[in-house]
Amino acid sequence: MNPTDLQAAELAQDHVNGERLLEAISSLASFGGRDDGGVSRQTLTEVDLASRRYLIDQARSMGCEVGIDECANLFFRRPGLDNDLPPVLTGSHADTQPVGGTLDGAYGVIAGLEVIAALNDAGIQTLRPIEVVAWTNEEGSRFGPGTMGSSAFVEPARLAEYRGSRDGDGISFGEALDSALAAVSDVPRLAMARPMASYVELHIEQGPILEAENVPLGVVDGIQSVRWYRVECQGTMAHAGTTPMDRRNDAMATAHRVAQRLYEFAAAEAATQVRLTLGRWLVEPNSVNTIPGRVEFTIDVRCVDEAVLDRFEAMLNETINTQVASPATVTATCFFRRASTKFPEHMQRLVEKACTRAATLAGRKLPITLTSGAFHDAMYLVDHCPTSMIFVPSIDGVSHNASEATAPDDLVLGAQALAYTVAALASS
Amino acid sequence: MNPTDLQAAELAQDHVNGERLLEAISSLASFGGRDDGGVSRQTLTEVDLASRRYLIDQARSMGCEVGIDECANLFFRRPGLDNDLPPVLTGSHADTQPVGGTLDGAYGVIAGLEVIAALNDAGIQTLRPIEVVAWTNEEGSRFGPGTMGSSAFVEPARLAEYRGSRDGDGISFGEALDSALAAVSDVPRLAMARPMASYVELHIEQGPILEAENVPLGVVDGIQSVRWYRVECQGTMAHAGTTPMDRRNDAMATAHRVAQRLYEFAAAEAATQVRLTLGRWLVEPNSVNTIPGRVEFTIDVRCVDEAVLDRFEAMLNETINTQVASPATVTATCFFRRASTKFPEHMQRLVEKACTRAATLAGRKLPITLTSGAFHDAMYLVDHCPTSMIFVPSIDGVSHNASEATAPDDLVLGAQALAYTVAALASS
Repeated sequence: MNPTDLQAAELAQDHVNGERLLEAISSLASFGGRDDGGVSRQTLTEVDLASRRYLIDQARSMGCEVGIDECANLFFRRPGLDNDLPPVLTGSHADTQPVGGTLDGAYGVIAGLEVIAALNDAGIQTLRPIEVVAWTNEEGSRFGPGTMGSSAFVEPARLAEYRGSRDGDGISFGEALDSALAAVSDVPRLAMARPMASYVELHIEQGPILEAENVPLGVVDGIQSVRWYRVECQGTMAHAGTTPMDRRNDAMATAHRVAQRLYEFAAAEAATQVRLTLGRWLVEPNSVNTIPGRVEFTIDVRCVDEAVLDRFEAMLNETINTQVASPATVTATCFFRRASTKFPEHMQRLVEKACTRAATLAGRKLPITLTSGAFHDAMYLVDHCPTSMIFVPSIDGVSHNASEATAPDDLVLGAQALAYTVAALASS
Repeated sequence: MNPTDLQAAELAQDHVNGERLLEAISSLASFGGRDDGGVSRQTLTEVDLASRRYLIDQARSMGCEVGIDECANLFFRRPGLDNDLPPVLTGSHADTQPVGGTLDGAYGVIAGLEVIAALNDAGIQTLRPIEVVAWTNEEGSRFGPGTMGSSAFVEPARLAEYRGSRDGDGISFGEALDSALAAVSDVPRLAMARPMASYVELHIEQGPILEAENVPLGVVDGIQSVRWYRVECQGTMAHAGTTPMDRRNDAMATAHRVAQRLYEFAAAEAATQVRLTLGRWLVEPNSVNTIPGRVEFTIDVRCVDEAVLDRFEAMLNETINTQVASPATVTATCFFRRASTKFPEHMQRLVEKACTRAATLAGRKLPITLTSGAFHDAMYLVDHCPTSMIFVPSIDGVSHNASEATAPDDLVLGAQALAYTVAALASS
């Protein structure tokens, strides 16, 4: 970083206005705001469309150009000195779970706009343009799958399939998208997959690590690898009273023995930080005095190290083919997998520098590096341009819940770290 | 047994008419008969009332007096030489599960009537009267709980509570009972809890033991003790991706560790023939990528030896109070328990003699003694008079199912053993 870049970055960071940031978070939260403090703003619903109009008006009032692409991803652009250069992109998503909080996604979008406001206040003109994005349908709760906007942006061919996805009322994503685009006919259309210089996403951690370490800022080095499996155990339904233990084919007892092996694997591999969840269970006939004839359960297994998941899969396949699984017939099917995401080293170092300065000035503990357990839009952007993420703590590690919260001071520090990072990237 | 009793018992056994028995089973099965070979004849439904009228007409055509009590238990009486003596009672129930077979209950009632027919054919007059009973609502599938008729017969105070039980359509057992009684206004009313000399119930095993031993007849020494528990594990719902293993309060992982202890107990106590079923599971929120916040499961544990269940309960309570259960909060509640039933030794010996003669004459293996895993009306009658049960094999151990079946030869042997037993009891 040359002296000018450094100066711009520090100036931007120092001009972040905490009060304005927190007010803007509250204002966006009023779209779909709930009495319990949560937010219900699923993608492309009426309240989501209203919040998009609000964001467009806010951005324009700050001097931004506004554009939208075919997947209704919204871009707010602050011009640079050389507008032929690919822009630095920041932001996140503004849609929520059916019952979500005020921060998941929204925080990254609002903080991006605060960075632009800080640059305006500081009177800084960056070399590159800066764009703030609000990705469409990150949550995937109304239309599956999630991260539609970011994944379609980097690979537009995905959009055709996404358009066919339907919500619970039978409305297709394509129909909802066309309505959303028609509602902002005043906004120019932008190309998908446009070149970007870099992408930085600020997000709440949605986990307990930063809080437990009492650290306000986290440098995200990547996103864990994940695999989902469906394990089906087929036994024989029989009378709980009349069937001796040695003549049973109890699907639950078998499922239990298989699960035992999986939990043992997770315990033995604890040092790898592997995460194992057996979250969804279907038991038939699910009656107190009938031996279960069929049990199905899901596995969600994640790890930074892909090799651990390979070992897990080998162990799972070996388990269901041994006598642990008998006498039931056991099958395991992988129905979702995504390899781990690694953010570039130079991006992590820049984020670390930004976080270190913000934390130091605030008299707080230095940032730590951690890996995201959840998916984010950054997971797809990393295929498109150098990408990084910054995390702030989640109180009690809670998210996807009305009680989702982060200490206001931490929210401000996160926006400061983002301002430094974006300004530095836009200066070279 | 004096020579006369022995002669009457052998004569009765030898006069059982297998063809008539099997035809009568088929005739009763036509009430609620299904295309798949099963029977749908839940208690006090239209088809059940029609079948009761059929049984009344059959019994009367055989010279029986018919009576009914306040719980609509039907009694078919063959007078004895001394009608002031308490009668020998046999029978079972004629109601079925929503989808049941042709034998569960019905076999015992029909075989009882065949015993009367055999005595008639043999021209035997017994000292005591003999009554065949069809108990009301043994199954408990339309109105809970089961074994209403027999339990109210021995303890009439129970009836007031039973009358309030409602079926899925909101009809009370009391209303259904009043209609059933009105439909047979030509049948005299009998007192509840009348003295009985003894009770013998012939039933299909509903389990795999006799079939596995290739033995046609079983002497039942009692009914297992049973306890039902509800185990509730309260953890903390959290994101499967973002929450490290050492910071989780995974209700399923905890439930699994508790279940592990229970299965280990059952394995260690295998010699006691304890039977353990974890049959019903409720998982919240039951989502692939959310750590379960709450898991509830049921325990059905049975054993001939009450002391084993006492040890089980002590182990369960110890388990939920140790670190096996932590960090979740685990509670266990017993919501049903019934001590084991033991049939009197002299009744078992008589049944054994009857079964041995029938099996020997047919060139089949000698009877074995076994304990009933399922509940039966005999479980309550044992509190009222000397009681015993005879089992015949169930093909594949299947019951409560349209495919429930027993080899015709075995059904005939069962009726022969019953005839011997009843005639002997009625002769002294």
